[in-house]
Amino acid sequence: MTTLIKGGKVVNEDFSVMADVYIEDGVISAVGSDLQVAAGTRVIDATDRLVLPGGIDTHTHMELSFMGTTAVDDFHIGTKAAVAGGTTMILDFVIPQKGCSLLEAYERWRRTADAKVCCDYSLHMAVTWWDDTVWLLYTTHTYKVKKEMETLVREKGVNSFKMFMAYKDVFMLRDHELYAAFSQCKDIGAIAQVHAENGDLIAEGAKRMLSLGITGPEGHEMCRPEEVEAEATQRAITIAHAANCPLYVVHVMSKSAAKVVANARRNGRVVFGEPIAAGLGTDGTNYWHKNWAHAAGFVMGPPLRPDSSTPGYLMDLLANDDLSVTGTDNCTFSVCQKALGKDDFTKIPNGVNGVEDRMSVIWEKGVHSGKMDENRFVAVTSTNAAKIFNLYPRKGRIAKGSDADLVIWDPKATR
Amino acid sequence: MTTLIKGGKVVNEDFSVMADVYIEDGVISAVGSDLQVAAGTRVIDATDRLVLPGGIDTHTHMELSFMGTTAVDDFHIGTKAAVAGGTTMILDFVIPQKGCSLLEAYERWRRTADAKVCCDYSLHMAVTWWDDTVWLLYTTHTYKVKKEMETLVREKGVNSFKMFMAYKDVFMLRDHELYAAFSQCKDIGAIAQVHAENGDLIAEGAKRMLSLGITGPEGHEMCRPEEVEAEATQRAITIAHAANCPLYVVHVMSKSAAKVVANARRNGRVVFGEPIAAGLGTDGTNYWHKNWAHAAGFVMGPPLRPDSSTPGYLMDLLANDDLSVTGTDNCTFSVCQKALGKDDFTKIPNGVNGVEDRMSVIWEKGVHSGKMDENRFVAVTSTNAAKIFNLYPRKGRIAKGSDADLVIWDPKATR
Amino acid sequence: MTTLIKGGKVVNEDFSVMADVYIEDGVISAVGSDLQVAAGTRVIDATDRLVLPGGIDTHTHMELSFMGTTAVDDFHIGTKAAVAGGTTMILDFVIPQKGCSLLEAYERWRRTADAKVCCDYSLHMAVTWWDDTVWLLYTTHTYKVKKEMETLVREKGVNSFKMFMAYKDVFMLRDHELYAAFSQCKDIGAIAQVHAENGDLIAEGAKRMLSLGITGPEGHEMCRPEEVEAEATQRAITIAHAANCPLYVVHVMSKSAAKVVANARRNGRVVFGEPIAAGLGTDGTNYWHKNWAHAAGFVMGPPLRPDSSTPGYLMDLLANDDLSVTGTDNCTFSVCQKALGKDDFTKIPNGVNGVEDRMSVIWEKGVHSGKMDENRFVAVTSTNAAKIFNLYPRKGRIAKGSDADLVIWDPKATR
Amino acid sequence: MTTLIKGGKVVNEDFSVMADVYIEDGVISAVGSDLQVAAGTRVIDATDRLVLPGGIDTHTHMELSFMGTTAVDDFHIGTKAAVAGGTTMILDFVIPQKGCSLLEAYERWRRTADAKVCCDYSLHMAVTWWDDTVWLLYTTHTYKVKKEMETLVREKGVNSFKMFMAYKDVFMLRDHELYAAFSQCKDIGAIAQVHAENGDLIAEGAKRMLSLGITGPEGHEMCRPEEVEAEATQRAITIAHAANCPLYVVHVMSKSAAKVVANARRNGRVVFGEPIAAGLGTDGTNYWHKNWAHAAGFVMGPPLRPDSSTPGYLMDLLANDDLSVTGTDNCTFSVCQKALGKDDFTKIPNGVNGVEDRMSVIWEKGVHSGKMDENRFVAVTSTNAAKIFNLYPRKGRIAKGSDADLVIWDPKATR
Repeated sequence: MTTLIKGGKVVNEDFSVMADVYIEDGVISAVGSDLQVAAGTRVIDATDRLVLPGGIDTHTHMELSFMGTTAVDDFHIGTKAAVAGGTTMILDFVIPQKGCSLLEAYERWRRTADAKVCCDYSLHMAVTWWDDTVWLLYTTHTYKVKKEMETLVREKGVNSFKMFMAYKDVFMLRDHELYAAFSQCKDIGAIAQVHAENGDLIAEGAKRMLSLGITGPEGHEMCRPEEVEAEATQRAITIAHAANCPLYVVHVMSKSAAKVVANARRNGRVVFGEPIAAGLGTDGTNYWHKNWAHAAGFVMGPPLRPDSSTPGYLMDLLANDDLSVTGTDNCTFSVCQKALGKDDFTKIPNGVNGVEDRMSVIWEKGVHSGKMDENRFVAVTSTNAAKIFNLYPRKGRIAKGSDADLVIWDPKATR
Repeated sequence: MTTLIKGGKVVNEDFSVMADVYIEDGVISAVGSDLQVAAGTRVIDATDRLVLPGGIDTHTHMELSFMGTTAVDDFHIGTKAAVAGGTTMILDFVIPQKGCSLLEAYERWRRTADAKVCCDYSLHMAVTWWDDTVWLLYTTHTYKVKKEMETLVREKGVNSFKMFMAYKDVFMLRDHELYAAFSQCKDIGAIAQVHAENGDLIAEGAKRMLSLGITGPEGHEMCRPEEVEAEATQRAITIAHAANCPLYVVHVMSKSAAKVVANARRNGRVVFGEPIAAGLGTDGTNYWHKNWAHAAGFVMGPPLRPDSSTPGYLMDLLANDDLSVTGTDNCTFSVCQKALGKDDFTKIPNGVNGVEDRMSVIWEKGVHSGKMDENRFVAVTSTNAAKIFNLYPRKGRIAKGSDADLVIWDPKATR
Repeated sequence: MTTLIKGGKVVNEDFSVMADVYIEDGVISAVGSDLQVAAGTRVIDATDRLVLPGGIDTHTHMELSFMGTTAVDDFHIGTKAAVAGGTTMILDFVIPQKGCSLLEAYERWRRTADAKVCCDYSLHMAVTWWDDTVWLLYTTHTYKVKKEMETLVREKGVNSFKMFMAYKDVFMLRDHELYAAFSQCKDIGAIAQVHAENGDLIAEGAKRMLSLGITGPEGHEMCRPEEVEAEATQRAITIAHAANCPLYVVHVMSKSAAKVVANARRNGRVVFGEPIAAGLGTDGTNYWHKNWAHAAGFVMGPPLRPDSSTPGYLMDLLANDDLSVTGTDNCTFSVCQKALGKDDFTKIPNGVNGVEDRMSVIWEKGVHSGKMDENRFVAVTSTNAAKIFNLYPRKGRIAKGSDADLVIWDPKATR
Repeated sequence: MTTLIKGGKVVNEDFSVMADVYIEDGVISAVGSDLQVAAGTRVIDATDRLVLPGGIDTHTHMELSFMGTTAVDDFHIGTKAAVAGGTTMILDFVIPQKGCSLLEAYERWRRTADAKVCCDYSLHMAVTWWDDTVWLLYTTHTYKVKKEMETLVREKGVNSFKMFMAYKDVFMLRDHELYAAFSQCKDIGAIAQVHAENGDLIAEGAKRMLSLGITGPEGHEMCRPEEVEAEATQRAITIAHAANCPLYVVHVMSKSAAKVVANARRNGRVVFGEPIAAGLGTDGTNYWHKNWAHAAGFVMGPPLRPDSSTPGYLMDLLANDDLSVTGTDNCTFSVCQKALGKDDFTKIPNGVNGVEDRMSVIWEKGVHSGKMDENRFVAVTSTNAAKIFNLYPRKGRIAKGSDADLVIWDPKATR
């Protein structure tokens, strides 16, 4: 089976060129003009269209069980949505409960996904506990987490581990555990990821809000203002530097956290910041919406910020390479599920959508607005992710030998 | 008993004026020219001299028992040195062990000091533990710390409480404990102080240095580089803001921590930074001195910084009111005591001198260098401390009704 | 004639105290309780009131002839308004035409003011030209400007000179002229003031706006966005530092210019920033108001900024001493006068009101909002100005020997 | 004539791969393994070597006549040195005298270069005057500069114009001329370049230094400290933004100027900063060297900075993409030529070497030090320059169809 994409403008991160793309067995075999093709080749006309490397969504949580319910986008419907929006690969998270085996959780999640996905995917591994912390209780323990991390890298190809600084008592690690986890990442050649919010302050803030009688979705943001995110981001960078480990900050949601990332990069720290589609496309004023269901639909952690200049600022930094890649944190809950927290914002399941919309949101707010060109668009939606997670140039580039994960993009279409 | 100081230039924080000062019973009764004085008044000639409000050292640890030994400056010799250097009041710290009564520690420390001091003094109270953390073990507990803080304020006049973010397992509080302590400060009208360094990272760093075979004084700085201080400073400010409590950062030792304080002030946070004489006068290159005794003499926490532009930078910020007051962290150990750590820098008792030298160091590096004038000198050595710790205008100002804590300063003298 | 102000709270920049104030012949002769007073003394009850040093407005343009018309507030009505609002002294500007004698302009302006003022006043002198620039044409010239500056300082008590970086071809000086003027200020012991905007860019911007058909008041801001102000501020600071001269930036109107001032202070530059009542109280969205007269009423240079977070930001910096004093740039024009520019925003006379409202605007937005206390209020409305312009402690303080310029302030009154 | 480079590691800006490179007629015809090659193909063994795109030096002044003498590196010896160091293309500057035709200067410079070069080259065009400024004198003038700029773009392929903010009365343009030149660049699709230093302040500073008796090379730096560079950089960025024109800052020499560039990029400005080999490799302490000839050898404008952390800082920003490309400002003068200024630093011909050393300096200080990887090395020595000046992907990339400008690099060689 061979395919020829004809007449389009091939856009890579470094330059664009009018060229045809010839595909054999799912792999790009030639890029250029007047290509020789096999008889019977399917020809797709891409005149007036851009031909882009398929999008990579760095951050999804398909069918995640969380806060007493399960995200409605499963791997089937979620990846179908991804493909509809121009994303041909997702990176999802395996999140074991505290005390549980990472390896078993990984295998279970792979089985779940394999049965359903309709696009490429890969898995980040969350590290939600650390053995040292329980040595008093389990004296015969053999440091399982550390060892399993190594096994996942050596045998399963995992190369990214995510640690939580929020979700106290559920997923949160303390500083010495972060240091230990980052050090292990360094030793085994993986990249450390963090959810950067101060879990202690969130817990205290939530108590305070509820005691003040603030129970609606706005309390979700008020109990964890952006400096709670910025503080944790700065702390994670400091700890990662102490461990000499590269760091990837998932869902950078505020101007102040983004500044922390940008300043660290200027100081030579190897740190990557990931804004998400929701944060680039809208803001936290939604939490004050009169319609509870509307407001609750935007509840996620860290929250969107009420400062309405936030999305534009994050896009500026994405354009200027202070921020590097884009995900979605796609983790969708229905209104009925969100209603679990109708009397108490701390019980609203955290999560938003975006896997289908990410590419078009960034095109609209980033390219159409004049902040970035089509090449930077490819970089932040696909190429940079491929490079950071060791998929490049098989993914993230249109070139001979790369996977034929292609998007034919109409730059003038509207929705 | 009356005294007349004649012919000097009276320097307050706001302006200077040629004037005489008349003192009755230890209190200033008049400032001006041609004052009427009682017969038999002692007259001190202050021609060509400055008459300054007595210095206030915001940070001393006289005869502190720490790291297995006791500081050699006791309250007698220490305050004698203070007075010799132009400091007429010291603020010392009561530091109870974890689990011990604050009130008892306070009383004991007052008794110790009262018997020996030869200048005015006041006490900060350290909060080294928090009841919530041990509720599982002592179920009948009645939140003693919180209550004792209130008693100290109401009955003993204490208005400042210091919390440690360093000295893990000894004095360190975790974030939720800091939040609780800060909140209590807010409620009882006291100011919160912090020793801002990340204790977890110091512990890990120290292990790493020792495992690399670095056992000398230089390891003390290398295991806790300045970003460890800056991180904790940022965190303390964030927590204090969440608790809506004013914050005082003791011993700001690095450019990056000072920048954090300055940025926070610009953002409207009520935060005060205290550089110390050692940090304003010298730098951390001393830790690499070939003479171990020389190097060990500078070991304190947070350490002096190897960046030799640090003292000048801290002085700039002190001149510009980004930093507010000056102390010394005077806590002296002899070479023999320092030698406890001759094979392991983690065992070198932490502490430096300075109570006698503070005023002249700041004059030399601050005023003589042209960075500040004599009025700002008075502000940062005396007046601002008096204001922050509620001693003003009884202390910190030369005016009718103020205590006659006066220094006659020769601006041209050298040592 | 003697007066006793009884029962009030005397507020100085450094502290507040319940005290009576006794006044003899316009001078404060005692501050305290149970004061002995002469028979027949007028007694003013200040119970529940604050007694403040009279306000000093650092920046007014009474009856200024400018842009083809004359400001409607003359020295009589203008100073009457000042006093009504709690301001007991104004600092006005003498602005000679290019080529004209400074000394003659000064004498003329004094005569004008003396005949009308009903409060204290002093004069800043504008330097609108420099002799060096015309040496080719007037070869026998004897550097009149430089010499007249010295005469004004020695004989007339002037100690501040203002240079314009805007108003190209009218008042604007080029960089080498600024350097020369600043150097002369340094030599004669005066402070240099600047109106900091890039006049070249304003001229080009205005042409561009008009060519685009934008003729309304919004064009006034669009042709000179805030970076035009920030650039000039940075340039002025650089030039002043090269000449080693203290600098005072009049009407700091934008966040970015204020940041430039704040950063320079942190770097040890002696620079003072003056926000004005209009900039602290409202913003540039008014230029887009549908009512032309409303919009035109806010036209001044530099303009108010459309970023609605600007007033709050400037107040934060004023509270934190990044900015130092407050003026008004009071220069009022009627709607008829403003209408000179009804078809061309470049012809709208520049100027706003404020001399009556300054104190209450700062109280409302600064003190009532919780950003500053009553002592800082006194510092920024009075004391700091008195210090910078060498009026202290005669002005700006309530103390024995100071002028009895007092305001009895009702902190709970509303308008 | 065909060539095969065999066994090397091909390094592009985005990734590295073990591959052979096949070259036909000076153009790369294949990159891969097991390539089919023509009989008689010359084979070059690149085992254990890197194969890099040829370096592009963005900034040279071969045989420039300047300050009364002519640079000793002519186009022959200069380009020979370039090639010896791994640079296969230089971008030189055409610099007409004020009032002279750009077009004629361009043609003359091309003839000069064509006769001698032994590598590829291209030319930037300096705009050293502007017609509007002389309209009074030449009333029949037809705005020649503006028109010639367009002709150079349309007919000669020039796409970069450099304007000087320094060299007062020689090359310097004033702000309104910069605005006009930048606007024309915008209109004709070229990029504006600036030499960013405040020429007025340099002139004043030089006078001051000489009047103080400072005549040696150290005076060169002291009369134009780094804030003189930072100020002009900020001004150029402001003017370029007003004209909506991309900007390229040549020879960024100081930390403060580099920060200005980095901050502007973060704010979305399209601005590129070019550090040079001398600035990345050494610092301005050389100006205080006891040997006059040594010190004078480093005199260039803007000068190297005495802050010894400058080179490392510039390299950090180059690594992090706050700075974009690297040149040399290669403009060499012999000791005899430098001696023109032996009694007056203002007469020392400005210029340093570097065209041969640039690649190895950046490898040593950037890659060997661990600040950047081999891919970023390619970006900053070649690819980014090719992109900015519209040479990409013909230059700056190893790919089928690109020019065979290749360097075989031994990463372990030392000099």
